Amino acid sequence: MKPLLLAILVLFLLPGRAVPAEGPMSEATEACLGCHALSTPGIVADWKNSRHSRVTPKEGLAKPALERRVSAEKIDDPLGKTVVGCAECHTLNPGKHPDSFEHGGYNVHVVVSPQDCAVCHPIEKQQYDQNLMSRAHGNLVKNPVYLNLADTVNSVQKFGTMRTLPQPPDEQTNADSCLFCHGTEVKVKGFRKRETDQGPMKFPLLSNWPNQGVGRINPDGTPGACTPCHTRHGFSIETARKPYTCSTCHKGPDVPAYKVYEVSKHGNLFSSHQKDWDFNKVPWTVGKDYTAPTCAACHVSLLVNEGGDIIAERSHKMSDRLPWRLMGLIYSHPYPKSPDTSIIKNKAGLPLPTELTGEPAAQHLIDSKEMERRLKTLQNICLACHSSEWTGNHFKRLENTIRTTNEMTLAATKIVSTAWEKGVAKGLAQKDSPFNEYIEKKWVEQWLFYANSTRFASAMAGADYGVFAEGRWYLSRNIQEMLDHLHFLLKQQR
Amino acid sequence: MKPLLLAILVLFLLPGRAVPAEGPMSEATEACLGCHALSTPGIVADWKNSRHSRVTPKEGLAKPALERRVSAEKIDDPLGKTVVGCAECHTLNPGKHPDSFEHGGYNVHVVVSPQDCAVCHPIEKQQYDQNLMSRAHGNLVKNPVYLNLADTVNSVQKFGTMRTLPQPPDEQTNADSCLFCHGTEVKVKGFRKRETDQGPMKFPLLSNWPNQGVGRINPDGTPGACTPCHTRHGFSIETARKPYTCSTCHKGPDVPAYKVYEVSKHGNLFSSHQKDWDFNKVPWTVGKDYTAPTCAACHVSLLVNEGGDIIAERSHKMSDRLPWRLMGLIYSHPYPKSPDTSIIKNKAGLPLPTELTGEPAAQHLIDSKEMERRLKTLQNICLACHSSEWTGNHFKRLENTIRTTNEMTLAATKIVSTAWEKGVAKGLAQKDSPFNEYIEKKWVEQWLFYANSTRFASAMAGADYGVFAEGRWYLSRNIQEMLDHLHFLLKQQR
Amino acid sequence: MKPLLLAILVLFLLPGRAVPAEGPMSEATEACLGCHALSTPGIVADWKNSRHSRVTPKEGLAKPALERRVSAEKIDDPLGKTVVGCAECHTLNPGKHPDSFEHGGYNVHVVVSPQDCAVCHPIEKQQYDQNLMSRAHGNLVKNPVYLNLADTVNSVQKFGTMRTLPQPPDEQTNADSCLFCHGTEVKVKGFRKRETDQGPMKFPLLSNWPNQGVGRINPDGTPGACTPCHTRHGFSIETARKPYTCSTCHKGPDVPAYKVYEVSKHGNLFSSHQKDWDFNKVPWTVGKDYTAPTCAACHVSLLVNEGGDIIAERSHKMSDRLPWRLMGLIYSHPYPKSPDTSIIKNKAGLPLPTELTGEPAAQHLIDSKEMERRLKTLQNICLACHSSEWTGNHFKRLENTIRTTNEMTLAATKIVSTAWEKGVAKGLAQKDSPFNEYIEKKWVEQWLFYANSTRFASAMAGADYGVFAEGRWYLSRNIQEMLDHLHFLLKQQR
Repeated sequence: MKPLLLAILVLFLLPGRAVPAEGPMSEATEACLGCHALSTPGIVADWKNSRHSRVTPKEGLAKPALERRVSAEKIDDPLGKTVVGCAECHTLNPGKHPDSFEHGGYNVHVVVSPQDCAVCHPIEKQQYDQNLMSRAHGNLVKNPVYLNLADTVNSVQKFGTMRTLPQPPDEQTNADSCLFCHGTEVKVKGFRKRETDQGPMKFPLLSNWPNQGVGRINPDGTPGACTPCHTRHGFSIETARKPYTCSTCHKGPDVPAYKVYEVSKHGNLFSSHQKDWDFNKVPWTVGKDYTAPTCAACHVSLLVNEGGDIIAERSHKMSDRLPWRLMGLIYSHPYPKSPDTSIIKNKAGLPLPTELTGEPAAQHLIDSKEMERRLKTLQNICLACHSSEWTGNHFKRLENTIRTTNEMTLAATKIVSTAWEKGVAKGLAQKDSPFNEYIEKKWVEQWLFYANSTRFASAMAGADYGVFAEGRWYLSRNIQEMLDHLHFLLKQQR
Repeated sequence: MKPLLLAILVLFLLPGRAVPAEGPMSEATEACLGCHALSTPGIVADWKNSRHSRVTPKEGLAKPALERRVSAEKIDDPLGKTVVGCAECHTLNPGKHPDSFEHGGYNVHVVVSPQDCAVCHPIEKQQYDQNLMSRAHGNLVKNPVYLNLADTVNSVQKFGTMRTLPQPPDEQTNADSCLFCHGTEVKVKGFRKRETDQGPMKFPLLSNWPNQGVGRINPDGTPGACTPCHTRHGFSIETARKPYTCSTCHKGPDVPAYKVYEVSKHGNLFSSHQKDWDFNKVPWTVGKDYTAPTCAACHVSLLVNEGGDIIAERSHKMSDRLPWRLMGLIYSHPYPKSPDTSIIKNKAGLPLPTELTGEPAAQHLIDSKEMERRLKTLQNICLACHSSEWTGNHFKRLENTIRTTNEMTLAATKIVSTAWEKGVAKGLAQKDSPFNEYIEKKWVEQWLFYANSTRFASAMAGADYGVFAEGRWYLSRNIQEMLDHLHFLLKQQR
Repeated sequence: MKPLLLAILVLFLLPGRAVPAEGPMSEATEACLGCHALSTPGIVADWKNSRHSRVTPKEGLAKPALERRVSAEKIDDPLGKTVVGCAECHTLNPGKHPDSFEHGGYNVHVVVSPQDCAVCHPIEKQQYDQNLMSRAHGNLVKNPVYLNLADTVNSVQKFGTMRTLPQPPDEQTNADSCLFCHGTEVKVKGFRKRETDQGPMKFPLLSNWPNQGVGRINPDGTPGACTPCHTRHGFSIETARKPYTCSTCHKGPDVPAYKVYEVSKHGNLFSSHQKDWDFNKVPWTVGKDYTAPTCAACHVSLLVNEGGDIIAERSHKMSDRLPWRLMGLIYSHPYPKSPDTSIIKNKAGLPLPTELTGEPAAQHLIDSKEMERRLKTLQNICLACHSSEWTGNHFKRLENTIRTTNEMTLAATKIVSTAWEKGVAKGLAQKDSPFNEYIEKKWVEQWLFYANSTRFASAMAGADYGVFAEGRWYLSRNIQEMLDHLHFLLKQQR
């Protein structure tokens, strides 16, 4: 066997290391690469390893329906006939991007937004637009209760005469904290000229930048970003399908999906056998390409069996497979109807999806019929490997957990309410933040950490996390700590 | 080189992706696959990738002694001559399974139990039967002290007039919490007919199902389950040998073996180099198949050196290599003699392996000679890579840690006892749960979380976990918190 | 294709599994292997898979400058012409090792120290010597404030009459706790004869052994160890470049670099795509060998672009790329000038790099010019993939986080100081440990856990860790708990 043959074999057998064979490139992209291969070699190499560098939209459109990764009906030339390079995205939709600037003879914008991606992926863009995550910025900052919670986390406290004095939170901290995942509002603050290897050049100055939050407000005004999951500049479906990607925002105790997944049997199989799976196949075939679900399998991907029958349609509106909102703020409840949750008001006039008693603000939430429909869609994925008895019982158990964790939140709410009523803490009725004193913070932990964690552990069958790690043990212990603390506060008052 | 040759090469070199070549199949299994390839494609594909689908018991029996995975002396036909398919396990031991039902012309049971596996793997079944884990259900629910602890974790608390009112824990929560790992009691509640793609069919209704706990009580009455580690339906030794499998139950702060392993040098080497190891070889050769131990290497697997000399015999009674019970309830102590720990009574009449002072309930625990024997078995594994000085000192350090952590538990026990004596908390002597008040819960954390974590960190050389993550820092801090809390309770009493 | 050819192909394509082709071996090493292949097969196999077993120093010296892994100008025979086997290291520098002993006809020492490694790797030894980590032992035990903190963590507390009585910490616990990572002082305590398979043999008895801490004091008096990162006996650059290695000491809440990395986009890409990276290449090419940085990429490795231009020079003085000391003890500050921080004294006379108010002990810390220089070196790595706007803003955000977390430490310091002043706790001024009471321990957590964690999350863009996991939420909540606790203590005093 000749060395050449051997070399070809190596390339063939180790696709991850293969030198990419780039497809036809636009002149503009060639111009970009001319400098950027030197100035930002990491980005260029990442793109060269990507599908975007090898397949033209036209070739993508020609695939059989189930294998298509582009959802546009039609992609006009010249865009269709070259691979998707730098210029194809960074010069799209001219006139719509306030962050556009003259750069090497081209009108380039920094922040590629969903409306750019939508030229080839319109259905995904549209679905994601209806997904809670695309509105994560506004859902936090336009809700005065949630914003107040964020402020009590992010503001610096000074110590005065036996009390603390919170300072207003600063923009940099917000961007480094909650808005890192929720998304910042990125605006053009101006332009700045600076020296480069190619002489002086002008660049836009962006506010709250960098940011890769899922609900980022882009300079062009669109909400949301595709790159938190389809990471630049490989935009790889493999990355998005691996749970590590979700973990960048879903590992903390408020929403510990990844930690629960890790200790679940599904996570165990992923960790043990992912080396034998194919994360790049479209559609994704159960038992062949993957043998246990990842986050994407249950919540996003197009799944089929080996016969090609569809098990689940692809949807970037994750809530299509989510009947409940497990992440209780402050109780768990049926999923909200609109991705924009800042419009919700409960009977008490608060911007919350439930009353403080746990009663759902029903007019803003999906009804039981819609819940049933979504549950069926989700269960269909379970049924590829589990019996209907197994599957049905699993979700009955989850419903029980939703009920019991909500009751444990109610008990904590009654304790903090007693503190407010008896004047040993100040809440909304006393025109103070309900989140800034110790007993209030323990109350927040009851629902934000322990009830949420217990529900995620139940939903994803990662019980080890839901008992002692951050679950029922703490739900129960926290109530006793709050109770003793209330008594100490009352004793002190006397 | 011809394309066919190339294809063969690919199959040969990437075994994980290889299309499985199934061996001779029974008619019954063929009938199962007829429908289930469509109705549960994930299970079928998983099995097709398994060793069970490729090797007949007879072929297994013919292997050289060290390479054998079946421990039966003899496996009769027809079982011996077909691969181990659906029907082979799900129709075994007819008449012994209350969950049997007529299904497509066969008498099928849902829950395959250790007595079914024992037809080919009798020694493993017998060993596991002597292993604490197989009794994890009864060891929890038949011990009134431990059960009370579980109840205080799992029951819903309501808030009444300045105090909390615990509700009785419900069955669903128990199954979703402690018993998820310990195992539920699965019984046939009845049968139900429902519509399927093949017309109406009758299925058994099982209590506390699904469950995959290590000490599950199966419908046929046998204790224990093989599938928590040898996951269905691949039953792969690779899965069982990877630490991810153990982590599904051993990651929480009560028994953080996996977290400690991760930060140990052994875990470091596993994480960095597992891609080059062979997890499927029997026997398992140190330095060749693996270069650092996983959980299975130290506690279960048959290990040899490259010359084929045995370093450790396989044992599914993990305690064969465990001198101490590190997981102190409430103190660490020599390993119990019987896997059924619910029979233990200390001098004070409590079902605990030590007195509340830490003194061991010696008659129920192994003696120093047996401890020495087990330690030698375990150390023999260390000695494949470490000097006897290194190895001996390591275990001396662990013994010191057992002593000091027990002393730190004693200090906490004295504080909570003072609270009971002075009437600011109610324990057993006051006919109340010793686990339901805040100061009592802090006491539980002292031994269940911090002392246990510190000991695991010491035993497995994962010191980073045993200092600030969940170890000595908290042991020391918790005593000070308990002390201050005791003073506050006393002040309040006045 | 012949079977032989196939076998060669397999070896060629799966290098990790390849049977190593050892190079020319010294007679002494052959003698070692004669017994140790049997007595410690794991070590021998590990070494056989290593580069040391295949490449002679002379061959290493002959490589092009950028590819060289040895930094010596010249390596004399006989050392240069044989592979680096057991004897080459364990008999080096005769006369300098108090742990030398006669063993099979050779004068062997147990603990190979940096001065041994320096024969081939002098620059790395010299750089590491200037690195804080090499002094981690003395920086802890020679600083009375830090040592007192360690003592309050490691000592056993007994419970007396309503108060706790700390016992002096024991040597075994220290070695199992802080000094596990910081390094113990290893000294020869004597020699012991014992029976072996080769008859009676004499071995040295070492104090505080085993230990693999980064700042270990070796029997030959040298500080530091190379093996915590370049793990015995593979000494693989692959191990050292993977973040798992760093995690063995940098995962706890005091310095959670690994946990932050895991949830960062860099960690996400590492976890998802490391299978396609080449961790063994020297130099390390961005975009080709790796597509996102690991710990080593940012802090140690020699990095180039595909054109061979140097992005970062290799340095084993990690602080060459570190302007700030993020791990605040008790505040974050500019990096110390000397690796030996036990020489630092602040204006108040305490061995701390800042005053208790946060003001830096400037004469012991690098100046702004040096900080700028180091920041530039670090940023050059970012710029391979990120724009200068992105990069600059990222570090501005970090500077803001350093400021705000220091302010949150100041608030906690004022609360604990108030407790000291008002006589409800005893600190340094009261001639007591400032770390042994509950309110003091909460103060420690403020800077050691929460402020540090928040800063690491900010520095490495792993925001999920810096909010609810162990970051700003706790910074804010802890101040409120300390405040309430102070009030309870004052109430109790009355």
